[in-house]
Amino acid sequence: MITSTQNQRIKHLLLLQQKSAQRRADGLFVVEGRREVEHCLSAGFTIKTAFVCEEIAETQVPLPQDVEVVPVAQNVYERIAYRGGTEGIVAVVAVRQTKLSDLKLSSSPLIVVLESVEKPGNLGAVLRSADAAGADAVVVCDPLTDLFNPNLIRSAVGALFTVPCVACSTEECIAFFKERSIQILTAQLQDSRLYYDTPMTGPTAIVMGTEATGLTEQWRKAADAHIRIPMLGRLDSLNVSVSAAILLFEAVRQRQIQIKEK
Amino acid sequence: MITSTQNQRIKHLLLLQQKSAQRRADGLFVVEGRREVEHCLSAGFTIKTAFVCEEIAETQVPLPQDVEVVPVAQNVYERIAYRGGTEGIVAVVAVRQTKLSDLKLSSSPLIVVLESVEKPGNLGAVLRSADAAGADAVVVCDPLTDLFNPNLIRSAVGALFTVPCVACSTEECIAFFKERSIQILTAQLQDSRLYYDTPMTGPTAIVMGTEATGLTEQWRKAADAHIRIPMLGRLDSLNVSVSAAILLFEAVRQRQIQIKEK
Repeated sequence: MITSTQNQRIKHLLLLQQKSAQRRADGLFVVEGRREVEHCLSAGFTIKTAFVCEEIAETQVPLPQDVEVVPVAQNVYERIAYRGGTEGIVAVVAVRQTKLSDLKLSSSPLIVVLESVEKPGNLGAVLRSADAAGADAVVVCDPLTDLFNPNLIRSAVGALFTVPCVACSTEECIAFFKERSIQILTAQLQDSRLYYDTPMTGPTAIVMGTEATGLTEQWRKAADAHIRIPMLGRLDSLNVSVSAAILLFEAVRQRQIQIKEK
Repeated sequence: MITSTQNQRIKHLLLLQQKSAQRRADGLFVVEGRREVEHCLSAGFTIKTAFVCEEIAETQVPLPQDVEVVPVAQNVYERIAYRGGTEGIVAVVAVRQTKLSDLKLSSSPLIVVLESVEKPGNLGAVLRSADAAGADAVVVCDPLTDLFNPNLIRSAVGALFTVPCVACSTEECIAFFKERSIQILTAQLQDSRLYYDTPMTGPTAIVMGTEATGLTEQWRKAADAHIRIPMLGRLDSLNVSVSAAILLFEAVRQRQIQIKEK
């Protein structure tokens, strides 16, 4: 059992949590919590090491035989866990990048595109909304986005593993949609129509810019329609995961006949 | 100019930020940031003191003449500001509690009710969604809720001042809705219909429980209808502010004929 926070493996784990350069160099990232580890396993990710604190873990997470399980003392666990040590498991997992060409799309795909990511936590929250709406994928148009940031994983509460998430360039993404006749709806005010007056039953990508700067010209030009959520209050914006959810669930509503709930 | 973080007034300000007991005892709370202070003034709150750092503030916020303006040095400002000192103003404001009977409702009110608040930041995010949807009010059914928590104010990005927010008991709230023939829609799975199959053009209150425990029997019984958002992914929940936005904007969609955007 590891009892010191100065242990080399613990130091390495902390580096993986804190530094995206370390994650890139090692091709590893960190997943915390029982439910997240289970979703991660279901999604076919490879867990290398599970640091487990038996004093904290209420029940054991069933892990594949080839996972190295490292017991850690409570003081060590509290150092490596963000969430105050309620679940007793922190896993080191091999990075797996999904490409656009890897996506297995449904017959009428529903995709969310973020042009860039202001805060990793926002992308996590968008993934959570995308999971709930049964979206096919979330695409981030910045090939350098670190999809394995701990704030992203935490705010996604498992959705990073249930919704395919791709980081690629805007050019690739637009080409991908055009080739597959997926309509591009850009969320923007200019020359826009109300989102609920816009048909979304066909293959649809909903593209959102940042809260601060909106969408680039490249996307505006590629758009089949510009859509807006009416702002009826005195503030002028919504959180991106909230906007995504409103737009995605309008697609769900329009598609309701085809949908079978689980 | 205050140059020391050990200054008594700075210490008191920090206590107001950190301790709800201090806020209650003094009837004061803290608002940070230019936009938030402006919304706070527009809503008719009384600002007692504005701590201003001229090195940081890009432009001056116009303040009423009776507001005491206290210049602070940059090191002091960085101690009192949560958001990393980008805007240069932190104000101490008099608490003002809104009661149900104070609400000025529209002819077909749209109200969000939270049975309790798990995290102040969630309530702030709900207020932001409520502002965007032009809701009449947000009600929290726990009379002891501290509506002036800094995390709430921050995540509301001004919406605490643009949407009336009331803390009261469940009994009061149910009686208020029944007296005014406001239909009660509870967000719950049991015996529910899909939210988009539920008419929301009349006076409507949307009631939500906590992510962890759902709604109490009291609300379930008072409900005119139980509504659910279909969960089409593999996770089983949405953030409460996201759920609120989906339900509120369905009401907006149904009411679209009557709505004029600003």
